[in-house]
Amino acid sequence: MPGYAHRRDDHLKRLRRIEGQIRGLQRMVEGDEYCIDVLTQIAAATKALQAVSLGLLDEHLKHCVSEAVAEGGEVAEAKIAEASAAIGRLVRS
Amino acid sequence: MPGYAHRRDDHLKRLRRIEGQIRGLQRMVEGDEYCIDVLTQIAAATKALQAVSLGLLDEHLKHCVSEAVAEGGEVAEAKIAEASAAIGRLVRS
Amino acid sequence: MPGYAHRRDDHLKRLRRIEGQIRGLQRMVEGDEYCIDVLTQIAAATKALQAVSLGLLDEHLKHCVSEAVAEGGEVAEAKIAEASAAIGRLVRS
Amino acid sequence: MPGYAHRRDDHLKRLRRIEGQIRGLQRMVEGDEYCIDVLTQIAAATKALQAVSLGLLDEHLKHCVSEAVAEGGEVAEAKIAEASAAIGRLVRS
Repeated sequence: MPGYAHRRDDHLKRLRRIEGQIRGLQRMVEGDEYCIDVLTQIAAATKALQAVSLGLLDEHLKHCVSEAVAEGGEVAEAKIAEASAAIGRLVRS
Repeated sequence: MPGYAHRRDDHLKRLRRIEGQIRGLQRMVEGDEYCIDVLTQIAAATKALQAVSLGLLDEHLKHCVSEAVAEGGEVAEAKIAEASAAIGRLVRS
Repeated sequence: MPGYAHRRDDHLKRLRRIEGQIRGLQRMVEGDEYCIDVLTQIAAATKALQAVSLGLLDEHLKHCVSEAVAEGGEVAEAKIAEASAAIGRLVRS
Repeated sequence: MPGYAHRRDDHLKRLRRIEGQIRGLQRMVEGDEYCIDVLTQIAAATKALQAVSLGLLDEHLKHCVSEAVAEGGEVAEAKIAEASAAIGRLVRS
């Protein structure tokens, strides 16, 4: 089970809402809506995706990383290095 | 017609691909896939959304802003202020 | 003269304040201050740098890009392509 | 001792280099250098600041958070909540 398992429904609900936002963006583009309005909605969808990432990462630290740290040694080191790399991708995306 | 009109199909294709990525994310979460793998895919979807934004913004500068600048005066000023505000939202999202 | 020339003093004042923030960060690290407090101050300095970028970009659109657009043709195209590339670097940094 | 203590010199060296970048930016603005060139250097300084953040955060997870997790209970929970909040500020800056 991944670290986010007990909050799976919450993450799914957010992702379905984001899917709706992306479909809304398609309708805006099909309807020739004004560029700046489309950009504003893309910024909103991006922020919503970021919120999912931050939620998943928090669960990951609370569960997967914490368990690895309790185990200690190389398992802990590898898990933290993996989390740091994921944070780096998130910061740069 | 918005500035992106002649590239509308390209933007729509990208947005449909992003919709597919978001649905893929839902399947990953439903399938209890590993947190870090979900995060990697969210970073990819975020970058794809950013690429749409940058494409729309480029078209906006080329068409809407250029036309306003040709008109000059307050129309030009207002259009540039609006574009700068949109760039600010993009940078902060 | 660059587009930001008439607001040069404002940009310089902001950059000197950011230099002070960076020196403050060095003192924090030398003084073994808590990681999270250092991170909070780095986030503040990053936001201050972003504000300078957005200010410069706004001036660039208002002056350099507007002049190139008034000239039209390839000059205008090249200037807008260059601005879009700079916005892309800003969004990804 | 903060989590980054044993890599303090490395962080300080990076921060001094960033201070040099900020001073270089001031000289560019004083010398009326081209807007886009200034923006490119700001993006470089921003990325350098981000690299310091990611390094500090990695050390923080390896040391401070790991020790709190080993202790367990509320200490661990509070430390992870604090780290998640810092990651959020980093992602949004």
